[in-house]
Amino acid sequence: MAMVTSGEVKLIGLWASSYCVRVEVALKLKGISYEYLEEDLITKSPVLLQFNPIHRKIPVLLHKGKSLAESLIILEYIDETWPDSPLMPTDPHERARLRFWASFFDTKMSGSGKTIFFVEGEEQEKEVAALKEFLNILENGLKKDFGSKKPFFNGESPGYLEVVIGSTIGWFKLLEDKTGAKLIDQETTPFLFSWITDFSEFGVVKEALPDQAKLLDFAKKRREMLLESSKHQ
Amino acid sequence: MAMVTSGEVKLIGLWASSYCVRVEVALKLKGISYEYLEEDLITKSPVLLQFNPIHRKIPVLLHKGKSLAESLIILEYIDETWPDSPLMPTDPHERARLRFWASFFDTKMSGSGKTIFFVEGEEQEKEVAALKEFLNILENGLKKDFGSKKPFFNGESPGYLEVVIGSTIGWFKLLEDKTGAKLIDQETTPFLFSWITDFSEFGVVKEALPDQAKLLDFAKKRREMLLESSKHQ
Repeated sequence: MAMVTSGEVKLIGLWASSYCVRVEVALKLKGISYEYLEEDLITKSPVLLQFNPIHRKIPVLLHKGKSLAESLIILEYIDETWPDSPLMPTDPHERARLRFWASFFDTKMSGSGKTIFFVEGEEQEKEVAALKEFLNILENGLKKDFGSKKPFFNGESPGYLEVVIGSTIGWFKLLEDKTGAKLIDQETTPFLFSWITDFSEFGVVKEALPDQAKLLDFAKKRREMLLESSKHQ
Repeated sequence: MAMVTSGEVKLIGLWASSYCVRVEVALKLKGISYEYLEEDLITKSPVLLQFNPIHRKIPVLLHKGKSLAESLIILEYIDETWPDSPLMPTDPHERARLRFWASFFDTKMSGSGKTIFFVEGEEQEKEVAALKEFLNILENGLKKDFGSKKPFFNGESPGYLEVVIGSTIGWFKLLEDKTGAKLIDQETTPFLFSWITDFSEFGVVKEALPDQAKLLDFAKKRREMLLESSKHQ
């Protein structure tokens, strides 16, 4: 594994964000040491605004003084910059399928997942039904494309798509707690369940995933904050 | 340039779609011969549903019997499968910046650009103002990141980001015609204007871009069709 000196790689992140967890897990899987700069959720720090002036969002990866934004793009950068322990296979079609599912996951989840935290009753049921339909497509699609690749799609160690999807596991558990619905479990989505469980129990991944009790506390506070700010708009 | 036998590569597309034009331009820049399967705008063909069951959208690239969807992902596939005449540079940071702007362009344009065709008066003015602000960010960002790379960001021949952004030029002209606003022109966005003009006048690109009068006719019919169908909902 490539080792770079401490300080060369910096990650501006927020511990609870699954987009940041993706980058942390990827760096850990590659054995890259990095400095972590925790971002303030309320006040955007000057360093964040300096390095991601367009989106003003975390995560931002700093490497040799250059900055990178957008978690999926950062993952590709990490894989290209430190090619040992690859996150992606070399076959172009497999790479395209992995990118397809990552993009599909982000497009669907950024809407549906977030909404569920802010709605109740009938509206929540509707969102949960849509999410379940989406997870069913994911279950069947991933099984079809990568069902023969075990334990991980890229070999013995988690790769690109495990990092993208698996890093959100804590938030799925919160969604299950809130709604009482079974989203990713042995019965409904056995393939996803076993795949994500393998991922979350993998050495360095386990260290990088946020603590579930802390995440619950974070989600509650964040919800209250957003509901409060929506009253004043 | 790599030459593959006719029939090995097939593109399911729609001539007026800039997402499809991207793929056509990329194939032409690489010198890959392909069979073009024109999709019906109203009835989705069985071949489209077979090969892109998730999104049911064009473009779909078929290669050696395998299918690929999503134009940005197809472009990466084309570049990885036929590495001669590369669309992307080798430097990971430059690649990340190109991907960043492509993703930014698609996210913003898929909303704003489409909306303008269906609104008038004040609402149109608001959308045009937002689009201009976006194009201003693009102008300054691309100039900062790639201003020193001439004539194209990747050398003497158009590459990934020229293909992504430049293939939409016809639709920008339609937006200008409809609104009377100057969007990409010598005065407002000189960098974008000269860059996209160079792209659209490049040999094989010129052949692949849709005819402007036909595109206007298509846009009018499409608009009427969508307005009509919205009445029945």
